[in-house]
Amino acid sequence: MPEIILSINAGSSSVKISVYKAPSAGTNHDPTQLAEAVISGLTAPPASLKYTRGDEKVDDKSLDGIKSQEEAFRYILDFLVKDKGLPEMGKIEDIHFTSHRVVHGGGYERSQVIDKETYDRIEELSDLAPLHNAPALTIVKAVSSLLPHATNIAYFDSSFHSTIPAHIHAYPIDPVVAKKNKLRKYGFHGISYAFITHAVSKYLQKPASELNIIALHLGSGASACCIKNGHSFDTSMGLTPLAGLPGATRSGSIDPSLMFHFTHSAGKPSRSSSEHMHITQAEEILNKNSGWKALTGTTDFGVISNKAGTDEDKDGTYSLAFDLFVDRILNYVGPYFVKLDGKVDALVFAGGIGEKGVKLRAMVVEGVRCLGFEVDEGRNEKLGGDVVVDISKEGARFKTLVCRTDEQLEMARGVVEERGRFERK
Amino acid sequence: MPEIILSINAGSSSVKISVYKAPSAGTNHDPTQLAEAVISGLTAPPASLKYTRGDEKVDDKSLDGIKSQEEAFRYILDFLVKDKGLPEMGKIEDIHFTSHRVVHGGGYERSQVIDKETYDRIEELSDLAPLHNAPALTIVKAVSSLLPHATNIAYFDSSFHSTIPAHIHAYPIDPVVAKKNKLRKYGFHGISYAFITHAVSKYLQKPASELNIIALHLGSGASACCIKNGHSFDTSMGLTPLAGLPGATRSGSIDPSLMFHFTHSAGKPSRSSSEHMHITQAEEILNKNSGWKALTGTTDFGVISNKAGTDEDKDGTYSLAFDLFVDRILNYVGPYFVKLDGKVDALVFAGGIGEKGVKLRAMVVEGVRCLGFEVDEGRNEKLGGDVVVDISKEGARFKTLVCRTDEQLEMARGVVEERGRFERK
Repeated sequence: MPEIILSINAGSSSVKISVYKAPSAGTNHDPTQLAEAVISGLTAPPASLKYTRGDEKVDDKSLDGIKSQEEAFRYILDFLVKDKGLPEMGKIEDIHFTSHRVVHGGGYERSQVIDKETYDRIEELSDLAPLHNAPALTIVKAVSSLLPHATNIAYFDSSFHSTIPAHIHAYPIDPVVAKKNKLRKYGFHGISYAFITHAVSKYLQKPASELNIIALHLGSGASACCIKNGHSFDTSMGLTPLAGLPGATRSGSIDPSLMFHFTHSAGKPSRSSSEHMHITQAEEILNKNSGWKALTGTTDFGVISNKAGTDEDKDGTYSLAFDLFVDRILNYVGPYFVKLDGKVDALVFAGGIGEKGVKLRAMVVEGVRCLGFEVDEGRNEKLGGDVVVDISKEGARFKTLVCRTDEQLEMARGVVEERGRFERK
Repeated sequence: MPEIILSINAGSSSVKISVYKAPSAGTNHDPTQLAEAVISGLTAPPASLKYTRGDEKVDDKSLDGIKSQEEAFRYILDFLVKDKGLPEMGKIEDIHFTSHRVVHGGGYERSQVIDKETYDRIEELSDLAPLHNAPALTIVKAVSSLLPHATNIAYFDSSFHSTIPAHIHAYPIDPVVAKKNKLRKYGFHGISYAFITHAVSKYLQKPASELNIIALHLGSGASACCIKNGHSFDTSMGLTPLAGLPGATRSGSIDPSLMFHFTHSAGKPSRSSSEHMHITQAEEILNKNSGWKALTGTTDFGVISNKAGTDEDKDGTYSLAFDLFVDRILNYVGPYFVKLDGKVDALVFAGGIGEKGVKLRAMVVEGVRCLGFEVDEGRNEKLGGDVVVDISKEGARFKTLVCRTDEQLEMARGVVEERGRFERK
């Protein structure tokens, strides 16, 4: 039997599991995806299932009684085992590895087998990112009882950024408190940036260790990354995913004193706080009730992009949100270009908005045209199906690419590549 | 008798008064500076006086019993009237105008004669910037009783930035609260940026309305400004002077959630708070106990620059602070270059560090060399005495300038230029 790897990505209202078959030992292939299951709507029941296996699809199957990440995880496991079309996974013992996307990895510079000690450390880190680490932890906990035979590995969104130099990751604050409370720029979306680095390196046929790119992972959470010689040199997110670019419900960087002028109870516990999860009202407002949802009422940037500047946008609300996002993106592309000393292999768009945002890509690239980026209108509009697509205009000084990032595959690939390290433990 | 203008700049521990003679009506000259008095050390008594009139100098005269901005102001007024070498100001009635630097001007788009209504509005604004507006307000209040015959005018550091477009000055937060609580990017150092715009326009013999510059006002408070066609298009400071670049005791932009991980009492009133002045502990820490003082122990960036990389810097503390500041400056020069579409007349250094920081200028310009900036080593080291000095290397694509900014003169010039508007009131 082939080895089965599950890549698991739990968000606040969804759980996504991708099933991979590891390549035969000694070959240089990527893991092969066999199936993918997503349960979404956990916070707005009834939850629903989407399932894809080859040409087989289950679309939006409504699920009663599935309300937590753990229930969703158990449901999907059971569903996969029972799927006759997936003989490679006839019983849960066929699962050799699970890989878990964990947002905040603190000082972890690479993925970790989840044993008692690792689990405790990840749990401790939740204090730094309570809104972000909790969903993954719920499943990590369930996995050890459900899949005790499997090797369970945590992949951290922050690890890719451990190469950021001190003068960029340090905050100009009391260094004693900074050290004690672990306050520094960590950066996130690192699993995606690792995928992008590999994919663009392959596409441009240039070793990753020589690759300089300005990467934009733009989704409901959005960030930018300056990748120098294949390593993160700077990124827009900070101590938590709140810093940097705005997102669907996130403010991104604002005046650090703003929240104290927004509400007098900025520092008080939010209603989502619990004994184990300390979230201030300020953090809740800035993470959950800001961003383009606050500006326009929708979390769907596609809607904003379509309505901006049309008759449906009489008061300019959608235009404002659209232009604001473009402006904030330029605030990172500009400095990352100079931090790469102008030696840039490509500007890369990724993430849901990065892939689908035809107009956004056009406007961002227009914004940096003086640096030598230019988009071909036709290519920008019709991407085709490749993992990496070149949308640059013929003759542009620098390349502009779109990359279909795949965090699930990146984790599964990591498992295969580093199997030795995990088995030795 | 000529008209006398006093330009007054009150900081938290100092008061500076410059005495100008207005040019004869109908001429196009600048006001002439007759004398300048600075009392510093108000928060670390005894305070001391520095006085300059032509070649006459009083250096560090220790003053007993001068502890407040108002006492310092009264002392200087008395000193000026009694100075026999200053016959133009034989009595306080000779003062026709006083101009006051006020940090936060909220929605004020230009200077304002200080009447009851203006005073009340400035006082209201203090809620947005309690740490910054209070010193000026103390003196504005004293002036109306001491100089009732004079026209007293407030110049706001924020006014110059009223041209920043909405998609740049808006924060992606609840727009209802933003409107109610006046939460937007205001920007500061505007009097300095106005001076820089005039000075560089004159130096380059290019109308201000066609001038595109990236201006850096670097002092113990530091900011950057993107000046497009003579107007502010973007700036690094925000709702308050805290956002953007770090300063002597200021953090600059950090993850907006950082302070809630720094201390559990982030939102509680600081010890400097009073009934009329609401300052949270977070704001106090970020404004007063951060920046390079927190990193290195000194507020003097010259010391940091000199020690960085020497034997006195074995643990790399000074290097870290120096490199961090350069990095953060690049974070603004990069985007402002693209926001000007690469049509840049000059990169301009100003402020105490901008003028004196030979090494800092060299490193910043080195950091943006890929854009076409290059410094001539000799010119950078020996500035000479002009208001604007070109330090660009021969043949560099873009100019790099140093400007000796003069907020006092800018205010006095404003008084002369707009005399009509003030007198009509």
